[in-house]
Amino acid sequence: MESSLIGYSRGDASAKTFQATNPANGEELPTNYAMASEEEVMDACRLANQASIPLSQISGAEKAVFLRTLADGIAAIVENLVPVMTAETGLPEPRVRAETGRTCGQLRMFAKLVEEGHWVDARIDRAQPNREPLPKPDLRAMLRPIGPVAVFCASNFPLAFSVAGGDSASAWAAGCPVIVKAHHAHPGTALLVGQVVVSTLKKCEWPEGAFSLMFGEGRSVGQSLVKNAQIKAVGFTGSRAGGRALFDLANAREEPIPVFAEMSSINPVFLLPGMNRERIEEFTTGLMGSATLGVGQFCTNPGIVFHPGGEFGDKLISAYVEKMKSVESCPMLHQGICESYKQGLSSLASCEGVKVEYEFESECDGKSSYAGPCVLRTSIADFSRDSSMMEEVFGPSTLLVSYDSVDQLLDLVQYLEGQLTVSIFGEKQDLKSQELLIDHLELKAGRILFNQFPTGVEVCEAIVHGGPYPATTDGRSTSVGTGAVLRFARPVCYQGFPDDWLPAELKEGNPLSINRCEV
Amino acid sequence: MESSLIGYSRGDASAKTFQATNPANGEELPTNYAMASEEEVMDACRLANQASIPLSQISGAEKAVFLRTLADGIAAIVENLVPVMTAETGLPEPRVRAETGRTCGQLRMFAKLVEEGHWVDARIDRAQPNREPLPKPDLRAMLRPIGPVAVFCASNFPLAFSVAGGDSASAWAAGCPVIVKAHHAHPGTALLVGQVVVSTLKKCEWPEGAFSLMFGEGRSVGQSLVKNAQIKAVGFTGSRAGGRALFDLANAREEPIPVFAEMSSINPVFLLPGMNRERIEEFTTGLMGSATLGVGQFCTNPGIVFHPGGEFGDKLISAYVEKMKSVESCPMLHQGICESYKQGLSSLASCEGVKVEYEFESECDGKSSYAGPCVLRTSIADFSRDSSMMEEVFGPSTLLVSYDSVDQLLDLVQYLEGQLTVSIFGEKQDLKSQELLIDHLELKAGRILFNQFPTGVEVCEAIVHGGPYPATTDGRSTSVGTGAVLRFARPVCYQGFPDDWLPAELKEGNPLSINRCEV
Repeated sequence: MESSLIGYSRGDASAKTFQATNPANGEELPTNYAMASEEEVMDACRLANQASIPLSQISGAEKAVFLRTLADGIAAIVENLVPVMTAETGLPEPRVRAETGRTCGQLRMFAKLVEEGHWVDARIDRAQPNREPLPKPDLRAMLRPIGPVAVFCASNFPLAFSVAGGDSASAWAAGCPVIVKAHHAHPGTALLVGQVVVSTLKKCEWPEGAFSLMFGEGRSVGQSLVKNAQIKAVGFTGSRAGGRALFDLANAREEPIPVFAEMSSINPVFLLPGMNRERIEEFTTGLMGSATLGVGQFCTNPGIVFHPGGEFGDKLISAYVEKMKSVESCPMLHQGICESYKQGLSSLASCEGVKVEYEFESECDGKSSYAGPCVLRTSIADFSRDSSMMEEVFGPSTLLVSYDSVDQLLDLVQYLEGQLTVSIFGEKQDLKSQELLIDHLELKAGRILFNQFPTGVEVCEAIVHGGPYPATTDGRSTSVGTGAVLRFARPVCYQGFPDDWLPAELKEGNPLSINRCEV
Repeated sequence: MESSLIGYSRGDASAKTFQATNPANGEELPTNYAMASEEEVMDACRLANQASIPLSQISGAEKAVFLRTLADGIAAIVENLVPVMTAETGLPEPRVRAETGRTCGQLRMFAKLVEEGHWVDARIDRAQPNREPLPKPDLRAMLRPIGPVAVFCASNFPLAFSVAGGDSASAWAAGCPVIVKAHHAHPGTALLVGQVVVSTLKKCEWPEGAFSLMFGEGRSVGQSLVKNAQIKAVGFTGSRAGGRALFDLANAREEPIPVFAEMSSINPVFLLPGMNRERIEEFTTGLMGSATLGVGQFCTNPGIVFHPGGEFGDKLISAYVEKMKSVESCPMLHQGICESYKQGLSSLASCEGVKVEYEFESECDGKSSYAGPCVLRTSIADFSRDSSMMEEVFGPSTLLVSYDSVDQLLDLVQYLEGQLTVSIFGEKQDLKSQELLIDHLELKAGRILFNQFPTGVEVCEAIVHGGPYPATTDGRSTSVGTGAVLRFARPVCYQGFPDDWLPAELKEGNPLSINRCEV
């Protein structure tokens, strides 16, 4: 029996419990997890609130030590993670190792960011006591932590977007306490990482309220967290319905708070009219890899391809179907996802004008949650008549949509919802002639790619993993890369304070040697 | 009869009309303004949407020309503005001239910002084709315009936060079309400025959808704007009820959009225990000036002062009352504000433990809207028992709250709502011993001042005119200063595009010579 981590304490183990299920065979895993009570949520929020001020005073160098120690600690338990995470998620061992590496890499990236310190957007307007008609005061501003952040573990990234994943790492980097709601599908993975976080906090002598991990099966723990007045922001990766529900809850509070929910994207791919047909072989190989990576369970999975019709289209479809036939079915992350995939495919297949070109049998029978690839086709005329075809089908399927003219694409693009990514394939010399289409597509996405596939999101300075609604609830943000830290910070201006009182980032002598805007 | 400006056209002048009122004498002003119809709102939004892509392609240098030409145009009509604005607002002529200067200064500040171009937060991750285990693609990101912005004119800044004020200027700087809802209290001022905007657009050959100005008396025009799917963000300065209503409306949309509403702040002032009593004279002079500036109708008006009790407090109160007796009553901006001020004072005076030390008779009789200063006092014990005392009273009043110990302040600060500003007065050597109090206060405000008063907001790089709710609906933003442009932009990442297709800001050769983060 395991229970929540509430600062340095453990939750009540006598509460109602739940177990995780192995999606490969449908069997319940042995460990029981006690669900957090309303009081335990309040305790965690109270501790987080108490930690807000001490954490906000910790220097970038000290935060870097914490983040790197945490990365080392997680890297050190990879052998423990392999059996637990493979059993809870059905993901293969190499993925566990790779995602552990990505998670540690993210923590180290934020360590470097806060150690260098430029991210705080320091702005200095010096006093001009002799200015006419009025003297100018001394004003200095920088980004400061927003306060306690509630983070929801993502089912599709049990490490990289869960307990010590991108949301938590960027919140700590900003100087915010974090309360994580574990995903019910992988509580054991969450607990292993959570225990490393707690031991790292102790090692670095951080206040215990900097981290809590809450278990819960249904919605009540998550809702209590978002409604708690001590929580000042929310990070979430998951379904559109789930993200919107949290967003609505947060905005209905007496004091509304920002919700950074990364939710839903069909990541459309556009093949420009002039694309060389010799590239079909290479393109379909790449598309197959991207569409079926991780059993299609990536936010940036390319779900829809718009391609020239006629002979080009026929050649493309048959080449793609041949590729997809080589893909075997694999367990999806949990039964709910597998059921949604099956339902999504069946409702897509029933749309007027949609033809199923290939479908691997998916087994989702309450015992196992195996899913295989699916290829569907339609025309842009039929697609434009039925907006339900734009809904995300989370899994390894592709809808191929043929068009006859770029005008049809231009008409369609007006009605396209916000996306994490839009990919364009074609010849360089055609970019100029399709400028209007690309300008329209840019309005719809956080990241726009040329001749590349959207999966394999780089964790770096320039990445944008965001986009207009419903890709996210805040199209002005990114949840991947160093820019993610900006979600959990707000500018504060200090006017007229003596130099020795100011934060190091704003002192006249610039002791941290950071980039500043100085006037 | 005047009507809305819908791009380069005029609205239907046969619609229902309204007139402005002179708050100094209660007389209706002669001009009739036709309220915009639902169709006219839709037309303006359609034009704005059409202008989105052309505007997003306009260079920083071209935007600078537009903003400077607009500033010159507004400066050139100051003699026309003086009679219209003084009649509509009761503000004195010097204020009209000063606010015209501030408005033009803001436009020029944003011109310089976009001309220099550093603001776009350009980030470049170069390709590493030989990286193991996977090559790194080329990723380049920058801030791009969010789309059409609805701006609501503020009653208390008929120029600087109205038609071509801070919200519009920062939206244009970001490359966004703007639709302004004129304030019903100063439609003539709005129209004069709006006509300059239109002529500037024509001169600079900008698309007409870059600007519309809608007249309306009640809420319907504003609500239609915020609900329109083409609108992608909202800027608002006004009451808490008004801002929250727009925020709720925007979040209830199928596609929610950000609302940057600057709403309500009591801008508390804290006198530290060790403050030298010799400074009472200077402090009360400054407080009187700040609290009564513009008849107390500034967002940063200091409404509440926490001060040591006992002999210090008695001396402070009597000195302050003497100062306030020298202040004459003046017309407030409109009758609604004057009535709210009277009601706010009466409900504050009726709170248990509150004593009115001085009150100038306010005339708010349906004919004129004159208001004078008011000084009230209470103890922190009584203040802590009645949260209604924390509500903003918009006008030239001050509530003086005596305390006995810093512990009382620390208790109170936990329950303080978000503020635009918090001001601290005291001796430098006491800052260190009151660090905990100041750290708590920082959590509550966008700007924190030492030995200075919060009115007279500098328009500069380092200013933060924002703060946690209810000061604003987005505590991560500022509505004054160059940082205001960040509200209307979102990051877009370009992956794998050839150099000659990339925006100038991201080209390999950095032709604009802007600051970039390059890896």
